Amino acid sequence: MARFSFNQATAKHWPLAEAVSGCAAAGVPGIGLWREPVQEYGLARTAKLVRDTGLTVTSLCRGGFFTADDWRDDNRRAIEEAATLGTSVLVLVSGGLPAGSRDVDGARRRVVDALAELTPEAAAAGVTLAVEPLHPMFCADRCVIATLGQALDLAERFPPGVVGVVVDTYHVWWDDTVHDQIARAGERIAAFQVADWVTPLPAGVLLGRALPGEGCIDLRRLREAVDAAGYTGPIEVEVFDATLWSRPGPEILTATLRSYLTHLP
Amino acid sequence: MARFSFNQATAKHWPLAEAVSGCAAAGVPGIGLWREPVQEYGLARTAKLVRDTGLTVTSLCRGGFFTADDWRDDNRRAIEEAATLGTSVLVLVSGGLPAGSRDVDGARRRVVDALAELTPEAAAAGVTLAVEPLHPMFCADRCVIATLGQALDLAERFPPGVVGVVVDTYHVWWDDTVHDQIARAGERIAAFQVADWVTPLPAGVLLGRALPGEGCIDLRRLREAVDAAGYTGPIEVEVFDATLWSRPGPEILTATLRSYLTHLP
Repeated sequence: MARFSFNQATAKHWPLAEAVSGCAAAGVPGIGLWREPVQEYGLARTAKLVRDTGLTVTSLCRGGFFTADDWRDDNRRAIEEAATLGTSVLVLVSGGLPAGSRDVDGARRRVVDALAELTPEAAAAGVTLAVEPLHPMFCADRCVIATLGQALDLAERFPPGVVGVVVDTYHVWWDDTVHDQIARAGERIAAFQVADWVTPLPAGVLLGRALPGEGCIDLRRLREAVDAAGYTGPIEVEVFDATLWSRPGPEILTATLRSYLTHLP
Repeated sequence: MARFSFNQATAKHWPLAEAVSGCAAAGVPGIGLWREPVQEYGLARTAKLVRDTGLTVTSLCRGGFFTADDWRDDNRRAIEEAATLGTSVLVLVSGGLPAGSRDVDGARRRVVDALAELTPEAAAAGVTLAVEPLHPMFCADRCVIATLGQALDLAERFPPGVVGVVVDTYHVWWDDTVHDQIARAGERIAAFQVADWVTPLPAGVLLGRALPGEGCIDLRRLREAVDAAGYTGPIEVEVFDATLWSRPGPEILTATLRSYLTHLP
């Protein structure tokens, strides 16, 4: 379990303080946090809480959404928050097309420009901007970066350590080039997240993910690929599923840990 | 309107004979047919009907589904049906993963093997096996061929004219390499289908398509790209949308034609 990290969105309704102490009590070494619950609990207070429990914050979700009007300030705050929480990984989801736009190339250029603006502050804070390609079904409304290859084309314009990529099994498994792209990514891999693919997809498609082993992704092969590429960091399980969310937090953690231990190491 | 073709699945509940005569009466030059309604109306009877009305059958949907037990016989029948209907384009959707499988590479190898078996009969019948990449959200359950690049890697193992590809805007628009791949495709483009992308996606995601112009795809740019690649064939509008389907067939045809004329030529 040394590499296991519990992304708090897997138990969306578990209050932050309980999730942190629940993970610590279960001997879980790492937790992935989200900005909204951190802000709600208080940034400094969260930082102290995780420090006191000895838990590692493996990532902060999320910056990005570069089509929003306040993207600059919001992403600067996100970099500071990551640094305060002691994590070097800020997950960035680029945002989709602006309302009414059909210019996907333009939206993608905007991501490059935004990263260029943010990199000095990220570098100064010791935070890696971890660009996450989302599954192409989110291209219009959440993330115009749709493949790992595309994320790497973007990241490689900047120094490694400052801009990296997230490999999330749910988003990349279908891609026939994914193993080549993981090998290419090498030290750019800033985070490895895991969820499984099940069908049918629910309306809105956001909450259709499943615990490792419940779906059709060869998770172990992808884990071996990121390892072979040189990644030695945490393996963060991040599942959005309304049925799972309806269970008590400690039960979700137990189920997640069991799935992880059966299907990843 | 010279290149317009009405895919009959756009008006799923419009009886075949009415759809054919409705298209002919509206001066529509082409229609894309589906095997199930053709079988229901009778293959020879359908062939005679379209011949009598002077309508061109621009494609037959669909063969493929190579993970089904009877794929060989079923695809042989599909080739014969296409030839009988006088169309040279048999759209192939590969099928997803077999139940319980996590071996997406294996499923993809099976597609290559199946095509190799079918090409002699297709060539003899004068029918192009038109491999359609579906959007990656269908990879698990409908089609392990998820990008145009992947479809071309597959098609290029076989002679042009025998194995081609379908470019469907709905399935490929999100791909940052799609314009390069369309240029690469050249004479391999056996069909060009059009639908628009709208969100949120409905449960099951199959019926979430929209008429041209209602969504976020730059359809005209993709049409210009297939033209620039040398494609001079029909432009088939194929939209699966439960609300659209609930309208009378003639209304659907009118709306489809209006969308097409506004957003494609």
